[in-house]
Amino acid sequence: MAEVRSVESRPGTRAVRRAAMAPVGGGITAPRGFTAGAVHCGIKASPEALDLVVLAADTPASAAALFTTNLAQAAPVVVSRQHLERAKGQARAVVVNSGCANACTGAQGMADATRMAEETAAALGCAPDEVLVASTGVIGVALKMDRVMLGIRAAIGRLSRDAGAEAARAIMTTDPFPKDHAVAVDTPRGRFTIGGMAKGSGMIEPNMATMLGFLTTDAEVPPALLRRALQISARDTFNAITVDGECSTNDSLFALASGASGVVVDEDTYPALVEGLLAVSRELAVAIVRGGEGATKVIAVTVADARTVEDARQVARTIANSPLVKTAVHGADPNWGRIVAAAGRSGVAFDVNRMTVHVGGTLLFERGLPHDDAAPRAAEHLQGKAVQIDVSLGSGGGVAATIWTCDLSAEYVRINGEYRT
Amino acid sequence: MAEVRSVESRPGTRAVRRAAMAPVGGGITAPRGFTAGAVHCGIKASPEALDLVVLAADTPASAAALFTTNLAQAAPVVVSRQHLERAKGQARAVVVNSGCANACTGAQGMADATRMAEETAAALGCAPDEVLVASTGVIGVALKMDRVMLGIRAAIGRLSRDAGAEAARAIMTTDPFPKDHAVAVDTPRGRFTIGGMAKGSGMIEPNMATMLGFLTTDAEVPPALLRRALQISARDTFNAITVDGECSTNDSLFALASGASGVVVDEDTYPALVEGLLAVSRELAVAIVRGGEGATKVIAVTVADARTVEDARQVARTIANSPLVKTAVHGADPNWGRIVAAAGRSGVAFDVNRMTVHVGGTLLFERGLPHDDAAPRAAEHLQGKAVQIDVSLGSGGGVAATIWTCDLSAEYVRINGEYRT
Repeated sequence: MAEVRSVESRPGTRAVRRAAMAPVGGGITAPRGFTAGAVHCGIKASPEALDLVVLAADTPASAAALFTTNLAQAAPVVVSRQHLERAKGQARAVVVNSGCANACTGAQGMADATRMAEETAAALGCAPDEVLVASTGVIGVALKMDRVMLGIRAAIGRLSRDAGAEAARAIMTTDPFPKDHAVAVDTPRGRFTIGGMAKGSGMIEPNMATMLGFLTTDAEVPPALLRRALQISARDTFNAITVDGECSTNDSLFALASGASGVVVDEDTYPALVEGLLAVSRELAVAIVRGGEGATKVIAVTVADARTVEDARQVARTIANSPLVKTAVHGADPNWGRIVAAAGRSGVAFDVNRMTVHVGGTLLFERGLPHDDAAPRAAEHLQGKAVQIDVSLGSGGGVAATIWTCDLSAEYVRINGEYRT
Repeated sequence: MAEVRSVESRPGTRAVRRAAMAPVGGGITAPRGFTAGAVHCGIKASPEALDLVVLAADTPASAAALFTTNLAQAAPVVVSRQHLERAKGQARAVVVNSGCANACTGAQGMADATRMAEETAAALGCAPDEVLVASTGVIGVALKMDRVMLGIRAAIGRLSRDAGAEAARAIMTTDPFPKDHAVAVDTPRGRFTIGGMAKGSGMIEPNMATMLGFLTTDAEVPPALLRRALQISARDTFNAITVDGECSTNDSLFALASGASGVVVDEDTYPALVEGLLAVSRELAVAIVRGGEGATKVIAVTVADARTVEDARQVARTIANSPLVKTAVHGADPNWGRIVAAAGRSGVAFDVNRMTVHVGGTLLFERGLPHDDAAPRAAEHLQGKAVQIDVSLGSGGGVAATIWTCDLSAEYVRINGEYRT
């Protein structure tokens, strides 16, 4: 099996931990104890387009979730948070629809999200609080509940262990490609599997800006520990990506643990769980960026030698969200001045005269002065699909963080500027 | 003379103060006691392009300045701040070049900026500390000092009271049009004049993202009071605009007061000074937005009924910088969902169920629910060149703030994505 280094194991940060893991097929249903059923129920216009999926656990699973920090939270976000609390971190299923975000829909939206959970629970024979709900699509439009109700019954009639690929397609809105991934993790206690799927924001129809992520594992993990592992793994993956700096009304990340592998997560195996979650989450998160609106390149911005990891993240995020940096990368312009200027306005204190900037491993700026003779080499790197920007703040802290983003193209403007009505 | 209401006089905020004022010609040299001389000295390639200007006061003037908060500060910013401190708020001249920002140029850049002040001082017969310096153009390139030195002498040889329009052209980089404005202000103590010019960021050649603003008045104002008035007037004008959320290495705003009108600014006339500065600054600031890269529309985002003016500004700024809002306006899409989502992620606490959103005076979102029947009317407003977005947070504070921005077009991407080398 391949050796995968965790994000936390950069040289100079923490001790290197390694877990033996390998990619496996099956996506979200790769771990034992989970089934999925995906259908077209009529929320999306196209009759071939899957638009509803139920992800079910054979028995009550440990569950954890992270939700959007936006004050404008969609009804399914509010309902899922309530259910997770009431069921004390246990869940039997997640019901997800695409094509309609059920956001900014008032009391009717809350009633609809609740009914989705109730219908799923009735069909599966569990309590409504054990069902989580997620929606993605247009804001401000009510769900066609008659179709959704029929869809839930149909999806549960189709539950299967082989539906991972269909499930990943059913949560897409205008994502250019489905995103799923799974790994098997070997530990001293035995092997367990982690699966996942996600959708990003490919907004050909405006208002569809929702990140949804789902992770499953057949390890046995108590809810509190699952939540901690989810938070840690999301920090450097789903929370370390940006397409346009926007945070939506529906963003949600769910994790379910069935325990079906018989591998109990304890002090010895917890690091392997975190690494496995990181590996699946990173694959999905970077895929969201690769499928970002109008994206032609994935850009990894690594800021090193910061005083704190928060400082490193803030500088990296400011660079990654800079429209001038993103357009320069789009045009393959090794424009280090924009990187320096973005870092300088990030709000983090550092000494520009100790800063260095590398693009694709080529040094372009050091101790306040440019290395413009190296620009052609950096420009060549920028012609590729995977761009690496490395900034060292020279603050002596030895701490690093990476944020992934995509370039900003005219296609982004076209996609988001098209007249909706 | 026209009655102009100040930004601070919105209903419900503060008492309405009015000053009698009227626009006058002459720009930066409209106030008595100031001359300017602009030349082409060879920093820009095109032989017709003015690229250096000296703004001179007949006698030592009160001076105040605001500089970029970016940590990466260009040499002229560092030198001007030092000179202003050493000369205790007195200045005889500002020397400005366009075409080269003298930023990220190390010790050589500092020496060059200092020499620009020294050469200007020698020609005018004042102390070098009495000369302020500003540069705008490409980052990371050294000034051609032989040409700059000749240019300074030539500009001072051409000093005239009629050079306001030429001065405004000499500070342009790729701004689509020059920006100057002046007003005469009547007070109980007599009439004084305020003039100004500014440049924005029209970056056809990358790396040219610099806002420079210059204000003159023939009122007599002590430096400390001038600084206070400049801070207050900049807050709701130059500091209330955004093209792309970027803050450059060279951003500078200067104010010089000659006293040549004989009108002394005291308790009675201070409000008129602030209003005059606001009127000139607002005209210049909105012109910068109108001339923003790829801009086709000016968008005023007003956030009202916030708890504090800081809250109002933060929400307005988040909406104004949202690429999804800016692309929607570009496409004339009355996409209120993006406005709600941007406000929700701004970091300011408010109740979405009390929020309202108007576009061009048309109510689109109220108490958590859309008014989609009104969308066609809002879409019609969005076809125009001046777009008004009004958000009420319903927080009961009755406080409002406005941020001006422009739409985000494919042209912005083209301008900033063009390959530099």
